[in-house]
Order: sequence, then structure tokens, then C-alpha cells
Amino acid sequence: MRYGNMTISYNSHLAEFKKPFGAVTPGHDVHFRIRIEGAGKLTVVLILTKEGQRETYREMSSEGHGYYTTVITSGDAGLYFYYFRIHIKEDNLDRYVFVGNNETGLGGECQVYEDFTYVKSYQMTMHNYIKPSPEWYREAVFYQIFVDRFYNGNEHGAILSPKKNSFIYATWEDSPIYIKDPQGNIVRWDFFGGNLKGVIAKLDYLKELGITGLYLNPVFEARSNHKYDTGDYMKIDPMFGDESIFRQLIEESEKRGIKIILDGVFNHAGADSIYFNKLGTYPEKGAYQGRDSKYTDWFMFNNYPEDYECWWGVKDLPNLNENNSEYRSFICGKGGVIDKWTKTGIGGWRLDVADEISDGFIRDIRTTMSEADSDTVLIGEVWEDASNKIAYGQRRRYLLGDELHGTMNYPLKDNMIAYLNGSISARDLYMRMMSLKENYPKEAFYSAFNSMGTHDTRRIRTEIPDMDKLKTAVTILMTMPGVPCVYYGDEAGMTGERDPYNRGPYPWGREDAELQKHYKDLIALRHSSDAFTSGDYIPFYQGNLYGYLRIGIKESYIVIVNRDETDRMMILEDAEGLSDIPRNLSHILQGEFHLPKKSTIVKRVHN
Amino acid sequence: MRYGNMTISYNSHLAEFKKPFGAVTPGHDVHFRIRIEGAGKLTVVLILTKEGQRETYREMSSEGHGYYTTVITSGDAGLYFYYFRIHIKEDNLDRYVFVGNNETGLGGECQVYEDFTYVKSYQMTMHNYIKPSPEWYREAVFYQIFVDRFYNGNEHGAILSPKKNSFIYATWEDSPIYIKDPQGNIVRWDFFGGNLKGVIAKLDYLKELGITGLYLNPVFEARSNHKYDTGDYMKIDPMFGDESIFRQLIEESEKRGIKIILDGVFNHAGADSIYFNKLGTYPEKGAYQGRDSKYTDWFMFNNYPEDYECWWGVKDLPNLNENNSEYRSFICGKGGVIDKWTKTGIGGWRLDVADEISDGFIRDIRTTMSEADSDTVLIGEVWEDASNKIAYGQRRRYLLGDELHGTMNYPLKDNMIAYLNGSISARDLYMRMMSLKENYPKEAFYSAFNSMGTHDTRRIRTEIPDMDKLKTAVTILMTMPGVPCVYYGDEAGMTGERDPYNRGPYPWGREDAELQKHYKDLIALRHSSDAFTSGDYIPFYQGNLYGYLRIGIKESYIVIVNRDETDRMMILEDAEGLSDIPRNLSHILQGEFHLPKKSTIVKRVHN
Repeated sequence: MRYGNMTISYNSHLAEFKKPFGAVTPGHDVHFRIRIEGAGKLTVVLILTKEGQRETYREMSSEGHGYYTTVITSGDAGLYFYYFRIHIKEDNLDRYVFVGNNETGLGGECQVYEDFTYVKSYQMTMHNYIKPSPEWYREAVFYQIFVDRFYNGNEHGAILSPKKNSFIYATWEDSPIYIKDPQGNIVRWDFFGGNLKGVIAKLDYLKELGITGLYLNPVFEARSNHKYDTGDYMKIDPMFGDESIFRQLIEESEKRGIKIILDGVFNHAGADSIYFNKLGTYPEKGAYQGRDSKYTDWFMFNNYPEDYECWWGVKDLPNLNENNSEYRSFICGKGGVIDKWTKTGIGGWRLDVADEISDGFIRDIRTTMSEADSDTVLIGEVWEDASNKIAYGQRRRYLLGDELHGTMNYPLKDNMIAYLNGSISARDLYMRMMSLKENYPKEAFYSAFNSMGTHDTRRIRTEIPDMDKLKTAVTILMTMPGVPCVYYGDEAGMTGERDPYNRGPYPWGREDAELQKHYKDLIALRHSSDAFTSGDYIPFYQGNLYGYLRIGIKESYIVIVNRDETDRMMILEDAEGLSDIPRNLSHILQGEFHLPKKSTIVKRVHN
Repeated sequence: MRYGNMTISYNSHLAEFKKPFGAVTPGHDVHFRIRIEGAGKLTVVLILTKEGQRETYREMSSEGHGYYTTVITSGDAGLYFYYFRIHIKEDNLDRYVFVGNNETGLGGECQVYEDFTYVKSYQMTMHNYIKPSPEWYREAVFYQIFVDRFYNGNEHGAILSPKKNSFIYATWEDSPIYIKDPQGNIVRWDFFGGNLKGVIAKLDYLKELGITGLYLNPVFEARSNHKYDTGDYMKIDPMFGDESIFRQLIEESEKRGIKIILDGVFNHAGADSIYFNKLGTYPEKGAYQGRDSKYTDWFMFNNYPEDYECWWGVKDLPNLNENNSEYRSFICGKGGVIDKWTKTGIGGWRLDVADEISDGFIRDIRTTMSEADSDTVLIGEVWEDASNKIAYGQRRRYLLGDELHGTMNYPLKDNMIAYLNGSISARDLYMRMMSLKENYPKEAFYSAFNSMGTHDTRRIRTEIPDMDKLKTAVTILMTMPGVPCVYYGDEAGMTGERDPYNRGPYPWGREDAELQKHYKDLIALRHSSDAFTSGDYIPFYQGNLYGYLRIGIKESYIVIVNRDETDRMMILEDAEGLSDIPRNLSHILQGEFHLPKKSTIVKRVHN
């Protein structure tokens, strides 16, 4: 960019300026180059800071043509931030200007700052993925099941072990509703009666769809329909089945090449639990029932017993004290929750509200899980860029290698919806996707749990009512790096605003056949090529058109999206983002693509 | 009572002053006597008014000892009111004083008024009971069933034809709850799943209990659980069964000597009905759907279609226009609602909200019903003294002989609860019971539908938590004139505040065996003697003790209640209310009765 007489160039995305791209592992060289043209004598310094430590200053060497360069060897895993300082000597005057990240903070093109207090740094993630996620996971296509709403496997739709003082929807076709008092508290829980037998009954359907992984919302005993209010971590909820049915599910899934991930909710329990026992449901004395309960120190009372810490002020969800060694050992010890269930043969865990549990606790869970079965995966619920998430004033280390294999990729969903619905430009989308690609360790980026909707969001068909654009979203989901997950019923065309409408019963027999076929086709496409699961991801854009390359070993794919209501033409050679493409692949950039309105091209090319 | 130098005596309860007691039929002599002692020359006039007509003046003849007398021949059926005017000539001064009902308005002892504008009249009911209620009815012991909450006769508790977007209670033991939005509108209906098969399955239980009549809350198709929002008057609600199951119920009941009364809800229909069809549930065009609907004039629109007359402002219950001849004929015509269902062999009808439907409509219903089957009964929902009820500015003619055979006796329940709980005295109770006895035609008093609770009141066990007093209430219910009715589950010891808590599911297998036995014993007692069904009823009191005689043909019963927490003694000869007892029964008045605290004596004596 121009600054006075100077032209200053730095772009973290380009090999010309930084090598390698993105996150690095310790002990590797990282090359930095910056170009300053039209200036006199300069001193250029790379200012690099590992978070929590002091700044380091490294003078860069001039190599002619305005280039200044330096090489560092990456240090310990952590978040690093950098920018450049240019010392200009003019007419015996010392001036300093600073070159940092652009205003979006998303990386790429630099920006010049005169006052260093306003400089936006570039992020450089250093990580230590000694063991990335299992291969089966990286190659999987997942399906998320909210068990109560998926399928009731009992004869005549009989309800398994109905809970006292709760409601059963009269028909499977009913629409969900909360039953609340005027203060907004839930007074009765509502159930459709889906259960694990129902999941077993539909495994053939899922296999046929191309699914190889199931993420189940919580299945342990709990009072609610969502079961995030665990009552007994050691027991399958009786409405869902029992341990024998659960083991049968694992076995039957395995037969069909499907692995199961469980939802681990360890930040809080239910008030109606063995441990807290506020309603006196369980025989043993719970923390709420007396200070001499063995569980008293598992919770945090400000004023015993009514005032206790709980999740977002919901009194039904008392927070567990992860610093209590007995609780910690209950979860992470031998024969504990993680150990017991991991050994049933599951594929791993999804950690609920990862932001609310400490790095140490997550590491313990990871260790216990891996010891029980090394071929398992640990993913976490994080809503933002998980590489630099600050939760409760603490920078989190989710993705530095020894915690989570991946996180739920809500940013991907949000970005795609925003782009397809026209609220951000193709360039904005490109920038955001590049930012994720740059900040995430590659292992984490390719282990991200990609979904176009979950039990916590509006359904994708409600977000994107236009059927052409909806299909595009599915195409993107299935051709992106990261592990795609279909939220149950999305493939059937279900709509749904936020909770409870996004948790409707699966419309068996009333599916949108066309959409379902699209899902099936795209899942098959994903399974057909390593380009999708492990290939390089190179996004680009031109006008309103957005696209990306997926570079496989023998073949590559070009994906281009036209969100507009008019036909468009894409000439790849003119697109932004493709300058660093390897020479041997330059033939890919040949050719023009005609995109009818609201269409997507997925084109296979030989390398 | 004393008035100046005079002592004036009149008491409408006593044969000394008025003969016959109470209501009379047209064309009979009625003797009035008043006694004025200590006065000089007097003219005494009986001022008698038939409601809606001009006053009549009848001078009374002196017959010595201060007695003045006159005889009238009763006229047309209607309500008559009377009081006395005494014209005193003193020192060439003309003075008038008036003798009327006492301040309570309940009859009995007179009161003297100086200003005739304040005089409270005595009521004298003249009626025309050409055909009183059927014998089977007068001798019956009823049981009221709220079908959804009584028993589910399906195997494994399967729900018959569940309604879309409604809730089923998860277990039969759940407690009922309304599902309302913050504005208080019901957003989903809640069902336990009781049905007519369930009633059939429990007929043997009811027979064993001594029940000979069933009053069913509405059974025609409707959206709610209570079914007062009729959707189709010609169809049994599919959750309850169908017409064939209904006919089977009639047949099986008949076999066990049990007659069934249906709930007739003709003042309003459901908004979700064939006729109004607000939700478009039914195929034919309803009144709400277009002015060209054949049902448009069945309803009363102020501003079509959103502003229409409805029951107590409940938009779900649009009022029917009983003056519309097509609607009237739909209910009362040949093959109409009354005709069709009466001919299935039911025992009769209970008219919902009788206050809201006209005398003419009730007479039409009675005529149609009687023509379909002359051995049927028509009772009505009236909450107060039905002999003089003014509803919507109109004096009602329910009990004058050509409308209702009887009415729901809420006053009896209220009086008994008030007495047993100590909020009124034994004398108050005596006065109130005498008032009903005096005002009601005997045929109506003995056809009153007596209940200690219904789906519209708190349950009797909740009203009277004390078990001894509760048993007393049951004893009174079973020994009173009028037809006793047990609200389902009261005999099992169910408690319940007002709706919805008074509509809980019957606690099969968890009944209060002691209370159940008490009901059974008292029902058996009632069936054992004509004294209870047709015998004279002579209430009395002494201190806090309340009692009554039931004078049968060969035997009589003395019932005495001690509500106090201490033992009491009753000496019948000292009790108030027994002065008119027939000479041949004076031996009954011999003896003393020791009543332990909170006890009831029921003593059989030969006449």
C-alpha cells in the first residue's frame, strides 16, 4: 500500500511474504519478507510476541528490490502475534511507522499505522499436534441425532419408561413447544419418544445415505428431553433404552461402518441428579440435601443450599466443581465416566460448552479417552474461531495439539449463510475463510466439525429458504475441509426456527426426496475423492462469485458458487486468491465457467 | 315477635300458620294464619302477588285468640310472593305495619316492617309437575365420570386416535396442568387417555360400589379434554371411542342396572366445530369461513368474522343462536341430537349452563326427549336456588314442572361444607335447608342432583380435609332427599383444588380403602330404605348439632351430626324444628343421643 512516497507490501497469505502459510509446529523455520519501495535508508524490525511473554525484536536484512527479510525458528506451542516496525531517517529526523494486520484483523493484506498503540497484529499459531484426529474421523460424514426426536423403535410407538409428570406429544407429527410458567421456567418436559432402538432401526437408512459417523446429543439419564441436565453419568436414560441396547447400537453401527460420538456434559449436572438431588429423586443424599453429602464439594454454594453457581443462571443446571479431585476422578479416573463409555467402543466425545471447562480438565479428558482407546476423537463446542478464543478472560489452548482434535465449525456455517443470503460479499467470505485457514493448525482445520445447523441454531432450510442456495450450502458442506455433519432431518427438508422448533420430529415418510437425493449424491461425492478430506483448500473470488480448489493427490476439484439471480461468468485466471497456486497445477486455471443464476459448479480435473 | 304492645306470630314453616307447607300445585287450597296478640281493633290483609302481575289484597278473618285467617286457591304455576298488612286504628289514627319474611329471606319466622317499601316477601312456589322424574332416577345413586381421567380401557394403555398437536400425560399418575401462553390462552390440550372402553371395563367396580346411574361429562367430538367445546354433536369423540362402543357401554350398563345421563351442551359449540370451523378442520364451510355457510345464522356475529358472541368471552366457545330455527331443529327435531342419542337407550340428559338457554328451548328439549323415551330425566346445571333463579334479568321457570326434573344441588354442597367446617351455625344450616325444602316443588327437591363436588368445584376431600367430617359429608349425601352423585375418585380419597386439579386421573390401585368402604356402606344403606329416597325430610338443630329425620313408610331414620371437637349430647325433645312432627311418630323423639366428637349417628327406628 502507499504511504507517503513509499509503497509497502506485506500479505500473510502469500508465499512471497511469509513461508510457510499459516500455523506452524515448533522447531521449524518461518520466513518473513516485507517490501518497501521508494524509500531511503530504513531499518525494519519484526516485532514478535508470544502471548504472555515479552516482545522480541529482530532486525530484518535488506536483500534488494526493497525486500527485507528474516527467518525465525518457531518456539513452544502457543499464540504468537507479530507486526513490523520501519525506522525512517529523513533529514536527520527519526520516524517510525508500523506495518500490521489490516483493520478486519483477518490477515492477508497489511496496513500501515503511525501510532504503534493502534497496530493490529498478525496472528501466528504454533501448535503441537503430535497426534492428530483418527483417520476414520477425518474421512467421516457425520449425522447428528437428537434422540427423542429421531425415531421411536418400539412397536406401536409405545413410550419406553415415560417420566412422571412429563408430556408425550400426541402424534409424531406434532410441532414442539416448551411448557413454561409465566416466569419462563419449564414446568413439564415434553417428549416425542424417540429412542436408541429407533436409531438402530434407522442405521440402514443412514448407511444408505452415506453416513459413517453419528453424533448423539446426550444419552445419559436426565429429566429433560435434551439431557444436558445429566442425572446419572453412568446410566443410559431409560426413555432411550439401557446399556445393553446402547451396546447393541455400537455393535450394529460398527457392522455398518458407523462410529458414534457421545456428548460429554461435564461443566454442570442436572439439579435432579444423583449428585445434587434437589428433588429427592435419587436414594443417596445429594449436595442440595445436606452438607454431609459426599457430593457437597462437587458443587459451588455461595449460600447453602439455595444459592449455588449454575450455568447461565439456570438453577436447573448447577455447575460442577472441576477442581474437586473426587469429581475430576469420577470423570477422568479408571472406571470413570470417560473410561467406562469410551471402552464400549464409541468413536469419541464432543465436549459440551468447552469454553466453561478448563484447559487442564480438557487435557485430562483427552488423556483418559486416548488411554481407553487411542483411535478416538475429541471435539469441542466452540462458537467462534477456536484458535484464538478468549473465554472468561482466558486465552484458550483448544487447538494447540493436546486438547481438542477439532471444534464445531460455527464460523463456517455463519459465513456461508451470510454469503448465500447476500449479507456479505464474496471478498468478505474469502477473507473470513482465509482467516480460519491461516489461524487454525491444519490438523484442526481438517478436523473441524462442520455443520450447517445443530440443535442450537435455526435449521439451514429456515436460514436459507431458497432451494437452489440451500443445495449450494450442502455442496459446500460436503466439499470443504473438516468433517461434515448433517443435522438429522435437514436432508429431509425440515425447517425450524431456534429451539424448540429446530428439534422437531423427523418426518418419516414425508421427506423432500429431491433434497434428500442431493445430500446423498454430495456425500457420495465426498467419499469418492481424497481431495475433499485431505486436499489443499484454496479459496478465491471474483465479483460476487466465490469458489475454491480442493487439490487431491491425483485429482482436484473446482467448486464455484454463483449466488446471484443472474447468470455469471468466472474466468479463473482473473480471480483473486489463486496467485500462489503450484506451477504444476496451473492448467487448472485455464478455462471459463458459465454459471447459471443461483448455481454451483463442482468440476473434477486431473492434476 | 314483639311490636309495641303487640306480639305478632307467623312462621311459614309451621302448620299452625301455613298449610300445606312449601310449594303447591294449582287448584289447591292454601291456608294462611297469622296471630296478633295484645292489639285492639285490626284489619289484616294478605297481600299476594304472582310475579309479573298486580298485587291482590285479601282481608283475613279473625277467629279469636288473636288469629286471623284466610284461604286461597292456588292459581297458575309461577312464583308467588306474599306478606301481611296490619291496619291499626288507634285514637282515630290509622297506622299500617307489615309482616313479612325475616331478613335472611329464607322463610320461617316473620319480621315486622313499618315501611312497606322494605318488606321482604315470603316465596310460595306454584308448580305443575304433571310428570315428575322417572322412578329409576329418584332411586338411583349416580357416579360422575370425566371420561379422559377415569380409565383407559385399551391394552397397554394405548391412546385411541390421539389429536394432532396435543399432549398425552406421560404416566397415569401425573398431575393435571393447563398448557397456556402468557396471555392465559390454552395452546395445547392435555389428555390422559381415558375412554369409553375404560368405563365399560369398570362397570363391575361401579356396580359393586352400588352405583345405578352414570353422569358422563360430554362425550361428543371436541378438541379439548373436557369436550364442552363440541365439534360434532352427532359423533362420539374418537379418543373416547365410536358409536358402536358407546352403544356397547349402554348395553353393558343396562345389564348391570346402570343408566347413563349425557351432558348436553347447547348454548355454545367449539370454534373448532363442523358449524363454526374456525380452524378449517372440517370439510364443509363453517360459519367463520364465509357468510354463505349454511351455519352462518347459527351464530351471532357483531362484526364478521372475528367479533362474535361467545361464552363468557372465551373465543373458543362461540354462542349458538337458539332462536335460529335450523339450529333449534338440529337439536330438537326428529333425528336431531336429542332424538338420536336419547333413542340409544340413555337415561336422560344434564343440560350444561341452563341459565344461558331459554325456558322455551329447555321445554323443547324436554318434549323431544320425552317423546323419544318417556322414562328419561332432564336435569340442569344451576348453581343457586333454582326455584327463584334470576338469570340475565329473567326469572327462570326451571322447576315449575315442564322444564327440568331437577337441578344440580350446589347449595346443598355449599351449606354442608360451610357447616362442617364451622363457618355457619347449625341454625344457619337449618334455615338454608328449610328454605330449599320450602321453595322447591317436592318433586324437584327429591329429584335434585346432589353432589359433594364436580369437575367445576374443589374436590370434597380438599374442601373437608378432616376424615371424620368428610365421612359425615358422605353420610349426609347418601341420606338426603335428592339423587346422590359421587364425583369419580372422591370415594378413592382423591384431593383436588379447582380445575385442573379436580380432574386428576383416578388412582387405580391406590385408593383409600377405608373411605371407599364408607361410600359403599352408605350407598348400600341408601338403597336399603325408601325413607332415604322418598321419605319426609325434617331437619332440626340444637346448639352446634344438626340433624334430620327421614320418615319412610314403615321405618324412619334419625341422622345427627356433631361437627365439634368435643363430645355432645342431643335431646331430641329440646331440638328446634321438630314441633310439627306427626303425632304417631312422637316416639321417635324419645331418647338422648351421645355423639362423640366429629361423629354422625344414623339410627333406624320403626314408625
